[in-house]
Amino acid sequence: MENREFLKANFRNELAKIETDQQKGMERPVKQKPVKEGEEVIDLPSIEDIDIGEKSIKKCLAGRRSHRKFLDKKLSLKELSFLLWSTQGISGKNENLRTSPSAGARHPFETYIEVHNVEQLTPGLYRYLPMDHKLVVLKNRSKSNELVECCLNQPFAGDCAATFIWSVIPYRTEWRYSVASHKPIALDAGHLCQNLYLACEAIDSGTCAIGAYDQQAIDKFIGVDGNEEFVIYISPVGKVK
Amino acid sequence: MENREFLKANFRNELAKIETDQQKGMERPVKQKPVKEGEEVIDLPSIEDIDIGEKSIKKCLAGRRSHRKFLDKKLSLKELSFLLWSTQGISGKNENLRTSPSAGARHPFETYIEVHNVEQLTPGLYRYLPMDHKLVVLKNRSKSNELVECCLNQPFAGDCAATFIWSVIPYRTEWRYSVASHKPIALDAGHLCQNLYLACEAIDSGTCAIGAYDQQAIDKFIGVDGNEEFVIYISPVGKVK
Repeated sequence: MENREFLKANFRNELAKIETDQQKGMERPVKQKPVKEGEEVIDLPSIEDIDIGEKSIKKCLAGRRSHRKFLDKKLSLKELSFLLWSTQGISGKNENLRTSPSAGARHPFETYIEVHNVEQLTPGLYRYLPMDHKLVVLKNRSKSNELVECCLNQPFAGDCAATFIWSVIPYRTEWRYSVASHKPIALDAGHLCQNLYLACEAIDSGTCAIGAYDQQAIDKFIGVDGNEEFVIYISPVGKVK
Repeated sequence: MENREFLKANFRNELAKIETDQQKGMERPVKQKPVKEGEEVIDLPSIEDIDIGEKSIKKCLAGRRSHRKFLDKKLSLKELSFLLWSTQGISGKNENLRTSPSAGARHPFETYIEVHNVEQLTPGLYRYLPMDHKLVVLKNRSKSNELVECCLNQPFAGDCAATFIWSVIPYRTEWRYSVASHKPIALDAGHLCQNLYLACEAIDSGTCAIGAYDQQAIDKFIGVDGNEEFVIYISPVGKVK
């Protein structure tokens, strides 16, 4: 099975033979897509002020389950704020100190949220700005079946409070690691999604990551080009208690 | 960059065209390598009895850092037990209910531990048995520079209390997902490693995952064939407080 090679460390041998864009002195890619002129930006409750997430790590680990059925209850903005910070948030004095690690601190992801049922937010598509801990409003739209279809008709992609859709901008990692970037990027996506599982446990919520989706359809759904930026992982979230 | 294709969901289209081994009725692979006759098995302190891991998930997330320098202090067996359970442990009534999720509940990993400085354990190589929450003794050996060399001379791979070395047995996932297995396997390895980062935070310990290693050398170091089973990720652990 030749795809197994992808999971090995041998790309490192190729990397040793080439000059990376970083070594060539090419400009370091930014770690957060800029906000376009005219886009609305929304403040999120600051993590310091949030009185949730007090459950012990042991209980979160013991209770972690894959949830595909959720209650018809709203997620609060505070809870969404906590989940966003848990997956990609800044937790230190610079943009590299984050709740989840990334190979070479490249942090190649953007987080999109399709909001269905969150207090204080109009349903539609948003993007998280980790550096600012804010949301950009990308599109107001009411629920349709489109996202469920993107997820090969898995109903919980739509029957939830909000769907996390992570894209990758692979060049952020390729700038340093070139051909050896792609296994680390997948590992990094696993890191951040695990934080979502555990953080959900702390707020009576649940998730189940989706790897089976229609690549072209979901890229179009969030408005990315499918090459320089494309969807890598999806995780619907809802209340379970 | 053609390796980007690996990160997309398009393998699903190929999967739809073929009959998987599961669909062919082939035997379901076991999720834990059996213990060989004559191998010594060691009990680990049971998770129910362990009074650690009480730190809040929020504090673990906020404090998560990549640690490459450790104190010259022993990890207790209780702490090692907690870390092993956190990454791959059973937390429910069957072998699929675990602290970290896996695509299709295939759980394709084995956990090897190279012990350098853990209370009650002779230095050497061990393997974790998640179904039994025990360790198999594979090899007693004192510290040499071999593991550091396997990790391309990153000294903290040896200067630590214990090094987690995860192998993958890809057929466990391929049995169900065939050509579409390999991105999910890398995501799954990220899931479990993130649990290690957070669990370390709860016990004044730290880790930093290693993706840059010599594939052939590390496979030999833990005694696996490099094809049906090979190393996918490495994470040295030590005390930081």
